[in-house]
Amino acid sequence: MATLEDLGVSAFINIVGAFAFLLLFAVLRIQPINDRVYFPKWYIAGERKGSRSRSGARGVGKFVNLNLWTYLTFLNWVPGALRMSQSEIIQHAGLDSAVYLRIYILGLKIFVPMTTLALLILIPVNVSGGTLVDLRKEIIFSDIDKLSISNVSPGSQRFFVHLLMAYLFTLWTCYMLYKEYDNVAFMRLHYLASQHRRVDQFTVVVRNVPHVHGHSTSQTVEQFFQRVHPDHYLSHQAVYNANKYAKLVKQKERLHNWLDYYQLKFDRNPEKRPTTKIGFLGCCGQRVDAIEYYTERISQLDKKIAIERERVLKDPKAIMPVAFVTFDSRWGAAVCAQTQQSKNPTQWLTEWAPEPRDVYWQNLAIPFVSLSIRKLLISVSVFALVFFYMIPIAFVQSLANLEGLEKVAPFLRTVIDIKVVKSFLQGFLPGLALKVFLYILPAVLMIMSKIEGYISLSSLERRAAAKYYYFMLVNVFLGSIIAGTAFEQLYSFLHQPPTQIPRTIGVAIPMKATFFMTFIMVDGWAGIASEILRVKPLVIYHLKNMFLVKTERDREKAMDPGSIGLPETLPTLQLYFLLGLVYAVITPILLPFILIFFAFAFLVYRHQIINVYNQEYESAGAFWPHVHSRIIASLLISQLLLLGLLGTKKAAYSTPLLIFLPVLTLWFHSYCKSRFEPAFRKYPLEEAMEKDIMERAAEPNLNLKAYLADAYLHPIFHAFEDEEMGQVRVDKGESHIASPIRSENNSPSPPHYVYHYEFEA
Amino acid sequence: MATLEDLGVSAFINIVGAFAFLLLFAVLRIQPINDRVYFPKWYIAGERKGSRSRSGARGVGKFVNLNLWTYLTFLNWVPGALRMSQSEIIQHAGLDSAVYLRIYILGLKIFVPMTTLALLILIPVNVSGGTLVDLRKEIIFSDIDKLSISNVSPGSQRFFVHLLMAYLFTLWTCYMLYKEYDNVAFMRLHYLASQHRRVDQFTVVVRNVPHVHGHSTSQTVEQFFQRVHPDHYLSHQAVYNANKYAKLVKQKERLHNWLDYYQLKFDRNPEKRPTTKIGFLGCCGQRVDAIEYYTERISQLDKKIAIERERVLKDPKAIMPVAFVTFDSRWGAAVCAQTQQSKNPTQWLTEWAPEPRDVYWQNLAIPFVSLSIRKLLISVSVFALVFFYMIPIAFVQSLANLEGLEKVAPFLRTVIDIKVVKSFLQGFLPGLALKVFLYILPAVLMIMSKIEGYISLSSLERRAAAKYYYFMLVNVFLGSIIAGTAFEQLYSFLHQPPTQIPRTIGVAIPMKATFFMTFIMVDGWAGIASEILRVKPLVIYHLKNMFLVKTERDREKAMDPGSIGLPETLPTLQLYFLLGLVYAVITPILLPFILIFFAFAFLVYRHQIINVYNQEYESAGAFWPHVHSRIIASLLISQLLLLGLLGTKKAAYSTPLLIFLPVLTLWFHSYCKSRFEPAFRKYPLEEAMEKDIMERAAEPNLNLKAYLADAYLHPIFHAFEDEEMGQVRVDKGESHIASPIRSENNSPSPPHYVYHYEFEA
Repeated sequence: MATLEDLGVSAFINIVGAFAFLLLFAVLRIQPINDRVYFPKWYIAGERKGSRSRSGARGVGKFVNLNLWTYLTFLNWVPGALRMSQSEIIQHAGLDSAVYLRIYILGLKIFVPMTTLALLILIPVNVSGGTLVDLRKEIIFSDIDKLSISNVSPGSQRFFVHLLMAYLFTLWTCYMLYKEYDNVAFMRLHYLASQHRRVDQFTVVVRNVPHVHGHSTSQTVEQFFQRVHPDHYLSHQAVYNANKYAKLVKQKERLHNWLDYYQLKFDRNPEKRPTTKIGFLGCCGQRVDAIEYYTERISQLDKKIAIERERVLKDPKAIMPVAFVTFDSRWGAAVCAQTQQSKNPTQWLTEWAPEPRDVYWQNLAIPFVSLSIRKLLISVSVFALVFFYMIPIAFVQSLANLEGLEKVAPFLRTVIDIKVVKSFLQGFLPGLALKVFLYILPAVLMIMSKIEGYISLSSLERRAAAKYYYFMLVNVFLGSIIAGTAFEQLYSFLHQPPTQIPRTIGVAIPMKATFFMTFIMVDGWAGIASEILRVKPLVIYHLKNMFLVKTERDREKAMDPGSIGLPETLPTLQLYFLLGLVYAVITPILLPFILIFFAFAFLVYRHQIINVYNQEYESAGAFWPHVHSRIIASLLISQLLLLGLLGTKKAAYSTPLLIFLPVLTLWFHSYCKSRFEPAFRKYPLEEAMEKDIMERAAEPNLNLKAYLADAYLHPIFHAFEDEEMGQVRVDKGESHIASPIRSENNSPSPPHYVYHYEFEA
Repeated sequence: MATLEDLGVSAFINIVGAFAFLLLFAVLRIQPINDRVYFPKWYIAGERKGSRSRSGARGVGKFVNLNLWTYLTFLNWVPGALRMSQSEIIQHAGLDSAVYLRIYILGLKIFVPMTTLALLILIPVNVSGGTLVDLRKEIIFSDIDKLSISNVSPGSQRFFVHLLMAYLFTLWTCYMLYKEYDNVAFMRLHYLASQHRRVDQFTVVVRNVPHVHGHSTSQTVEQFFQRVHPDHYLSHQAVYNANKYAKLVKQKERLHNWLDYYQLKFDRNPEKRPTTKIGFLGCCGQRVDAIEYYTERISQLDKKIAIERERVLKDPKAIMPVAFVTFDSRWGAAVCAQTQQSKNPTQWLTEWAPEPRDVYWQNLAIPFVSLSIRKLLISVSVFALVFFYMIPIAFVQSLANLEGLEKVAPFLRTVIDIKVVKSFLQGFLPGLALKVFLYILPAVLMIMSKIEGYISLSSLERRAAAKYYYFMLVNVFLGSIIAGTAFEQLYSFLHQPPTQIPRTIGVAIPMKATFFMTFIMVDGWAGIASEILRVKPLVIYHLKNMFLVKTERDREKAMDPGSIGLPETLPTLQLYFLLGLVYAVITPILLPFILIFFAFAFLVYRHQIINVYNQEYESAGAFWPHVHSRIIASLLISQLLLLGLLGTKKAAYSTPLLIFLPVLTLWFHSYCKSRFEPAFRKYPLEEAMEKDIMERAAEPNLNLKAYLADAYLHPIFHAFEDEEMGQVRVDKGESHIASPIRSENNSPSPPHYVYHYEFEA
């Protein structure tokens, strides 16, 4: 185990690293050329335009900041990050972002008093505790251990202090969790209540529409809702299976990119017309004129696209058994979303429609039985992934050794046989497989969630975050404490008595404190500092700028603000809560490290949310119940591990005293669940009615039907809207209004779809 | 272990016992004097009146059946029990009874093919299996074991047959469960659809009405629902806290009983006026004239009751924060019951109102926080009861020994010292504590469920059944397999690896087959035969007849039809399913015993439902999801135990092959849950709308408000309805209609409340 000095060295290195990142950031962010990388949110909000001409500088000043004074203060982004109030953040970046930042605040609220108390009381108790001091000559122990519970001799009465602290910490955590849940629920309701009219407030998505012989889906939906909701049903919008169409559009966009590329090449070098090969990946085949070739292919594809579009809009089979049903009031929609419609509980499944930009269109048509089977398969896969992920990696590693490489690619033999290269590869290759796996893991988990069949991006992200959390819990937390792979852990847990498991882990916990401190410094301090630097978007932006950008509009497209990335950041945050709660009683010296993480990450993410990230959807804090219950789970884990640890310390009285903590925590969880969760899952009728009445009073002549028309059309169709929408979408089902009026919802076309069709506009 | 001969003797004894009960029943049931004990349902249905004059017989013939011919056929109740069709049973005894009988049918459907297959395939495989035959000379084994899986030598390939059977049995059980769930769900929907108008279809119970300053509860409810459900809200009925009032009425009724008793005594012996003592329990104090004394006390109580009634009806504090809210359509009620009303999810909690006779009035006013705490306390208590129930019993046993008795009651010493008495007491006293405990257990579990705060008798019974099931599972099933108390089991399970537990139990299972066969014969065969005899109601009826009955009306009151008693019968049935599924692969010879139980119990309960039981409420088969999930749980237990058993049989291939069974079973469960459970929890709007439209067409002038008025008045108030209801209930809140019109719902006064107030009518 590391001594305090070792830890100091590690801290020094990481702090220096973090400072280096921050310095680099301070230099890069004030260069006008990087303005679109570090302040994209302001461009999207429309408050910055045409960065290079912004300062009015000319020549080099357009690209490099020549004002030397601005280089002197490398932390001057901090006040800017703090200046915005919470309500301004909600205004600027949405409630999701504001609620996300509250997780860090919650971390600080929980851990600041906890750290103070632990440092003032537990550390003196531990230091004067005794065993290790007495045994000084015989066994070597680290300085960290003197500050931890390991230093208290078995059977000591001092453990009562730890018990008391465990109770205090649990009560404090629960109190803060309760207050915060209350607060977030209030913010959500307030946000929903204060919002302007939105299409999703009036819309319900209906899945598993049964097939009635001789009727089209549109007719069936129309008849059913006119019968069951006669007073409130307004109209509905069919969902087209436009997956193939979307694929063609994507293909065209790719070709367009190449065309642009060659066009640019030709513009810069007008003497030589660029050529390309028409075979596989442009590597072989006949050499032709590139611009002509791509223009030709695009026009071919255009015809195909037009035919496919015609087919989707005309063919009744392209209408999926799903519909977005709109009502004449929020009350009507709230009623329909929360009730069971049909006698057959697997048909006419209704739920709140996500925002149009939040809809994940591909999953809308999955039938009920298939959903159920998908859930089973994905649960089994996630279990396998969490516990057996080392098996395929070991397999790949065994393939990716040098002998394997030489066999596959004999021409590399001469290179491989060089000693330096060989030793480098031998050290590098096996690690590479693991790194690649960990890098693609979030994407894999996202794909799994998509297969599971959720219909909104927000729920997909939440599900992916849940899966990532299990992975982190087993492979990072448990995997670090107990040596061995998750599979070995699983095996040993199955062959140990249940009471032995917390003991095994509990005993190992104090010994791993230094490891986790280093982990927090690397991942939490330096990692967060590198987050603010945005290396990947920076590089990609400049590459695009170099090769593709012609106009200011292209530059806008090259800008990639990204989003918070809940699937990764939420589980990471929850891991820090877990570490803090587990070590609070056992090795309290770890707590300050966590505090620094929460404070620093809060600043960084506040800055990023204000200046960089652009939210893809607005779920009004729908992820909070997950945050809450994961922290409760961390609390339970910490209590069980303390129970196990004290069990080995001959503190027999501890078991009956501690056993109440998990029971109380579980009860607290179930109470909070019934107290607050409905606010995140359902829409109270009282609220709906109030908004309806207010709106009717304010805008008595509102044409809601026109407002809601086309709000939930597949975004791919919006591309053609201006040209020909009015003439094509006429006869398909009498229900939806073939009006060319473009709805004025606040996000007519989701940003990630914008990407698809704006290229050919 | 018992040999086949021992088992035969046991079977013989139990069959003889069962026959004796049946013979006795055959004799008793045809005596006119017992007619009200064995055919009360027909009296309630109004198809039999004044039993003694029924046959027109005179003299002794009024009491004893003199027709010798009827004595000859002792099983002639069987065809009668089978004659009624299912739809007639639903008509006659309600859907709950019909669905309850379907559990037995389900048992037969599952186990008949299973038994056939097991006897034809598994027994030959086991018999020729080998180990025990080879070891014949060395160890003693029972004949039963030769037929069980124990007879197959470890590592044998024959276990593939058992694996195959496990798969077949699981698939078959799941298939039957699916079909039956489908069937029961259909029956329920059909029943609900075909029912005539009922008050509970239009009513929602609202709990946790918030207190608004300056408004009465009635005003608050009125305003809220007029605002949130303006189009459908009709009226509401406040709930009075009449618990104290009900207590007084009960006290009066008890005094009335005594008065009746002395009156009768005086009538029979007019020379001597009966006297009583006014002290404790009538044992000490001044001797007074009994009739005068009780008349006096009743008139005093009458005054108190009148004052209390006035107070309840006038005092605003006696109105609880609960209301029964009625709507103008089933659609409106269905919407309100399934949606969230208020922004605060702990206020305005709505759910379907139970039938008026199903309401458990005492629990209506429990606030949300208290409910949550009650649930926690009761969960902990149930856990303690299941695992530590032996501790208080051992304590009572230690007190109830002879030394303790002599200390408490020294005057008994001479009696106790007699040797015969002494040995009798020593053998008897410790057992008595256990017997008393087991006898009162269902009542205790019912009280626990009441404390938990459920508001309908049907849900109370379901919750009590669930608790009893846990008790049976741990203390009867596991307790019989592994020796030792539940507490010892818990201790050993906590100190064993999770994989070891199914092995420990699995290995013990074949050895306990004979025990469970005997158990089935005692509890399932003879026990069911004694059920049909109704010893307790028979004795009580004749005692009441002797001492209290004066008129035909009194006799009607003395009749106690009882009900099916779901809290006890459901868990018992589920235990039989568990035994059958566990032993199906392991010791298939047990299956015929289970089959006989299901067939015989089906006959007996069909007879009882037709002739005896009177349902207290109609939940339209709401208990089926519980039945279903308990059978699934049994299936899971059987799979895990088989896994454990085969683990000790060196059949290494069995683990990976068997591990899929529980996963598939769990998936099947979750599928059925989402497929069918909504039909038991929610009321589809489609259905509600259909019935509304039909009704409006059939009865366009229906005065629904008058129909629903007073439907949910506390039954204790119905007693005074005819006399003075109209004049008293006028001003309390403007909302509920102070009309003397008695609603014509099909059960204006629940039978168990009839008991309370008909005495003083």
